[in-house]
Amino acid sequence: MRVVSIHEPVREELAEVQAALERVTRSDVPVVREMLEHILAGEGKRLRPTIALLAGRFGEHRPDLLVPLAASIELLHTATLVHDDVIDASDTRRGKETTNARYHNAAAVMLGDYMFAHAADLICRTESLDVVKLFSRTLMAMATGELTQDMSAFEYGQGTMDYFRRIGGKTASLFATSAEGGALVAGARPAWREGLRTYGESVGMAFQIVDDVLDFEGTDTELGKPAGSDLMQGTLTLPALLLMERYPDDNPVKRLFGNERSQDHLNEALAMIRESDILERSKAVAAEFRDRAVRALEVLPDTPDRAALADIADYVLERRS
Amino acid sequence: MRVVSIHEPVREELAEVQAALERVTRSDVPVVREMLEHILAGEGKRLRPTIALLAGRFGEHRPDLLVPLAASIELLHTATLVHDDVIDASDTRRGKETTNARYHNAAAVMLGDYMFAHAADLICRTESLDVVKLFSRTLMAMATGELTQDMSAFEYGQGTMDYFRRIGGKTASLFATSAEGGALVAGARPAWREGLRTYGESVGMAFQIVDDVLDFEGTDTELGKPAGSDLMQGTLTLPALLLMERYPDDNPVKRLFGNERSQDHLNEALAMIRESDILERSKAVAAEFRDRAVRALEVLPDTPDRAALADIADYVLERRS
Repeated sequence: MRVVSIHEPVREELAEVQAALERVTRSDVPVVREMLEHILAGEGKRLRPTIALLAGRFGEHRPDLLVPLAASIELLHTATLVHDDVIDASDTRRGKETTNARYHNAAAVMLGDYMFAHAADLICRTESLDVVKLFSRTLMAMATGELTQDMSAFEYGQGTMDYFRRIGGKTASLFATSAEGGALVAGARPAWREGLRTYGESVGMAFQIVDDVLDFEGTDTELGKPAGSDLMQGTLTLPALLLMERYPDDNPVKRLFGNERSQDHLNEALAMIRESDILERSKAVAAEFRDRAVRALEVLPDTPDRAALADIADYVLERRS
Repeated sequence: MRVVSIHEPVREELAEVQAALERVTRSDVPVVREMLEHILAGEGKRLRPTIALLAGRFGEHRPDLLVPLAASIELLHTATLVHDDVIDASDTRRGKETTNARYHNAAAVMLGDYMFAHAADLICRTESLDVVKLFSRTLMAMATGELTQDMSAFEYGQGTMDYFRRIGGKTASLFATSAEGGALVAGARPAWREGLRTYGESVGMAFQIVDDVLDFEGTDTELGKPAGSDLMQGTLTLPALLLMERYPDDNPVKRLFGNERSQDHLNEALAMIRESDILERSKAVAAEFRDRAVRALEVLPDTPDRAALADIADYVLERRS
């Protein structure tokens, strides 16, 4: 499964989404344009807009409303990344210099806000108060997830349920909104809309778990950032939680989160996780979410668009970056 | 004119606005609640919500929709202050420690985003897509104003027109939206709505000019921050621009914005401005906006609510902090 084949059914509409994003970069202030071009360069996998565009085909197909929806979602996603990099003081993302590193924190904060404003403008172009409400609930879920993650950094007493709740807000909520937003724009019947929402949410959960596995599995070069960086930032993800469950009395995560935040403890945790079956077990959990996503699609008519959504769920699991 | 008398006509609704803001502070995460309580403590003058509540009385009075509108506007305003303090690396605001200083930049960025999300949620409760659209245009104007201000810092080649455009976006747009939003919720006739928008915008311009005068006029204690801090940050406001107009060839602002950013140049600029009639002339410009605001109200029926709006315009000019 290659990214390009996932995009194929909505290629033309995705080009319009890209054009809408490029219109956002056309600021009168040259440095603002430069920063936005750096951030919005068409390198992303555009998973969320693709899901929104496909979901919007189950009902009355309204590309004129789906394109602003999809562009708004991608812009919101990118804006949160810009702010996340300030929050985490990250220098690189996917091997590319972050806005806060390339310019400064102030620029990144302002630019994120500017992108939020454009996302709000685009979402209003769906002309649907229900879609706007969905968008605002998602903002809330994402902001709460992010706050909870930061506030619980280096707190050892968290379990997998806390983790699922956190990534549900931080990541899965926007995937759910991508699918449900498309359904709303199409005026899809309630059962389809519900199915699409469950699909989006489950794909989002799988996506984040795979992301968290890659953070342990990948090399620094593949990741474009140091391996194990979540743990080093004090964020407990599924592999670390499974390690803690397996060795509750003593384990390197416990020591890392204790008084001594040394690279040695991190390296030990990385080695223990990589040498065990923990990453496989984590991927199995992601696969369960993928299966749940595909099952949720069964309520929809069996069309190529439904198959494309199922392909995305598979791709999310198989991706290496 | 005292703040309390301005609030009198809408006292009960303002209490509901305060209650709505307090509901936002009820986070499950104790430190989030603590931060929000610190920020949203009921000390503000609540000018924007008061304007929204009064404007909403010209037409069908719907307090159930006006309260979320007013709370959303106050929350959006406060969220931008939280981010502004990160952007400007400010330690104090009105003598109170800023979120970024009291906690850290990351917390302030997240908290601002969390407040934006709640503001979006509240604005949706007006159940009006037109109000939501107005809100989104305002977000854009504010974000653009803030970006432009930062990107043009220490640029000497700016004139008063750039200044008016900048504060129009940064400050006046939210005042305009407060008044127009109230009118929209009330379903006011177009001429009233237009008049209220002009009123709000003009009050906002006057408000910001007075703010900028106070930055030169006040003592450090009155301001709760060092006098002349705008200029020291490279932001040209009306008094500085008038000084530059008066002494185009050589003046301390030119030297401050040149290679040598010394406190001496700032002190010299402060002294020259304070000893001249520049602050009086700046206030006269603010008074013109106040007059424009009051004139715009003439289209409305002559009620106590209209008189209260006129009082706010006067108060904005007379305030000392």
